Amino acid sequence: MKQVLLDSYGVPQGVARCAEVPDVGAPGPGEVVFDVLLFPINPADVWFCRGSYRLKPPLPSTPGAECIGRVTAVGSGVSHVKAGDLVINLQRENWAQKRRVKGDDVIAVPPGLDLKQAAMLRINPPTALLMLTDMTDLKPGDWVVQNVANSAVGRLVIPLAKARGLKTVNVVRRASLFADLKALGADACVVDGPDLADRVAAATGGAPVRLGLDAVSGAATARLAACVADGGVVCNYGAMSGEDPTVSRSDLIYRGLNLTGFMLGRFMARRSLAQIRDIYADLGRQLLDGRLSAPVEKIYAIDDIKEALVRAQEGERSGKILVAPNGMI
Amino acid sequence: MKQVLLDSYGVPQGVARCAEVPDVGAPGPGEVVFDVLLFPINPADVWFCRGSYRLKPPLPSTPGAECIGRVTAVGSGVSHVKAGDLVINLQRENWAQKRRVKGDDVIAVPPGLDLKQAAMLRINPPTALLMLTDMTDLKPGDWVVQNVANSAVGRLVIPLAKARGLKTVNVVRRASLFADLKALGADACVVDGPDLADRVAAATGGAPVRLGLDAVSGAATARLAACVADGGVVCNYGAMSGEDPTVSRSDLIYRGLNLTGFMLGRFMARRSLAQIRDIYADLGRQLLDGRLSAPVEKIYAIDDIKEALVRAQEGERSGKILVAPNGMI
Repeated sequence: MKQVLLDSYGVPQGVARCAEVPDVGAPGPGEVVFDVLLFPINPADVWFCRGSYRLKPPLPSTPGAECIGRVTAVGSGVSHVKAGDLVINLQRENWAQKRRVKGDDVIAVPPGLDLKQAAMLRINPPTALLMLTDMTDLKPGDWVVQNVANSAVGRLVIPLAKARGLKTVNVVRRASLFADLKALGADACVVDGPDLADRVAAATGGAPVRLGLDAVSGAATARLAACVADGGVVCNYGAMSGEDPTVSRSDLIYRGLNLTGFMLGRFMARRSLAQIRDIYADLGRQLLDGRLSAPVEKIYAIDDIKEALVRAQEGERSGKILVAPNGMI
Repeated sequence: MKQVLLDSYGVPQGVARCAEVPDVGAPGPGEVVFDVLLFPINPADVWFCRGSYRLKPPLPSTPGAECIGRVTAVGSGVSHVKAGDLVINLQRENWAQKRRVKGDDVIAVPPGLDLKQAAMLRINPPTALLMLTDMTDLKPGDWVVQNVANSAVGRLVIPLAKARGLKTVNVVRRASLFADLKALGADACVVDGPDLADRVAAATGGAPVRLGLDAVSGAATARLAACVADGGVVCNYGAMSGEDPTVSRSDLIYRGLNLTGFMLGRFMARRSLAQIRDIYADLGRQLLDGRLSAPVEKIYAIDDIKEALVRAQEGERSGKILVAPNGMI
């Protein structure tokens, strides 16, 4: 079987190769074996290849935080999935043709779900959802502001907020993105800049913004914080600027702002397996009925992993880069 | 009567003068008149004179966030204090010989309380107390880390934490301060530096630190944040560095740290007048029995306000500068 291996950490297309490795074998008790149908190349996977991700396992290592697979065999004691079911995997190392994992690590997704969307279900949709539910107590009608609104997570925040009756102000770097975001349900769009708080206040009619979602860090965190109402929360979940977040001391001291951070694993760990399955079932239904979706630019074969990695690191794409390890979908 | 007036905002000893003004007159219904016995010169008062405080009233204005006074007359409907009672004033403009205020703005302090300590009761003691009670749910045995531990607030945090069964790690810039802080009840003292988190971990034996109190801002906030355990809180309440607070994105994202701020007025505003009186009654008792105290260097006459302001802005003092507007105490 084929599997992507990293022989060292460095430039992704330099260090990653498609290798021939021994088959995963038959499932043991409580285990599941599945074919990987599609996996996406996420920014976190690129950082993983570069060795700059928080996880840096011994070499050779295999990237892959996400995938969609089809179960081929289950071991004794596994009853929640059967051969033929579509599953996502809560564990990593998914850049391979086959995976053998613990049964509790796979979660069935609804039949009929678009495989491309299912391949991108594990991380971004619950990230967008849990930032809206776990950071502060939002009520219908409340406003949320987010920067990098055109990112994969940003584009999911918009409909997920709308479904909860929340309104979104979406901060981007160019006005040409407004139409696209409004088509997703954005209530307001503004271009970033030093006067961001004024632009956001104009866009909301001065209504208080309870939550800010920041994926830029550095001074952008402070600009976003200035948009959030007294006592509100700014949640940092990314650092496109490569800098550490800063926030004005008057926003902290006089206005009582709260700055915190989000990483999916920490918030999933607070939940039972049943709750986690419920979250994915709910998100799967929203993908199925088309309320949520993420654009895809191109699907590559696993043999072309280097080429896929090059493209995944280029800007100006129309969507995510996916890889189909067991033949084109 | 005499009152300190600012004719403009600028260098404090340049803009502040002791003026002769009309008497405050007799109390109206619901009012109280008191003689100001002592007032301190706080850093916030100095910023007020400079016009760099958050409040900058029309000129001429009168500084003075704190004082201790003795009631000379009460208007109809005032029953909680009577002539002769010692009171603190929840309103400002206290740099004067006499004040006429709403009855609800004065709070009686225990008879027998040292007047110097009472003059410094309004702001720093409840600031230290409420940062320990309102920021996160601390339990006996929990550790708190604070920088600028030798400040007026920092020196109050130590015994107030101890009284609640909390342990303190106290960060200062020179080891010569350790003995003084340990005499106040400090459990551990460390000198600030790039490896602060390691020093703090060594001092606590690796026990988790639940709360960090930061009065420096800038990179010092990030150093303090690195000392706080996953999911803990860093409370910013000052900015000795003059910079905005920063915190590492990994502390926010991977460790779920919370950064927020404290200003006494916001946290008092959440409480009823009865609760506020209870807080001061409790703090007054702790001042009375000597568990809490703040050092005083010198007491000036109100005519010497310029000289007092000069001294209050110099470093290397042995304690706070106070002014006695109605004659030496």
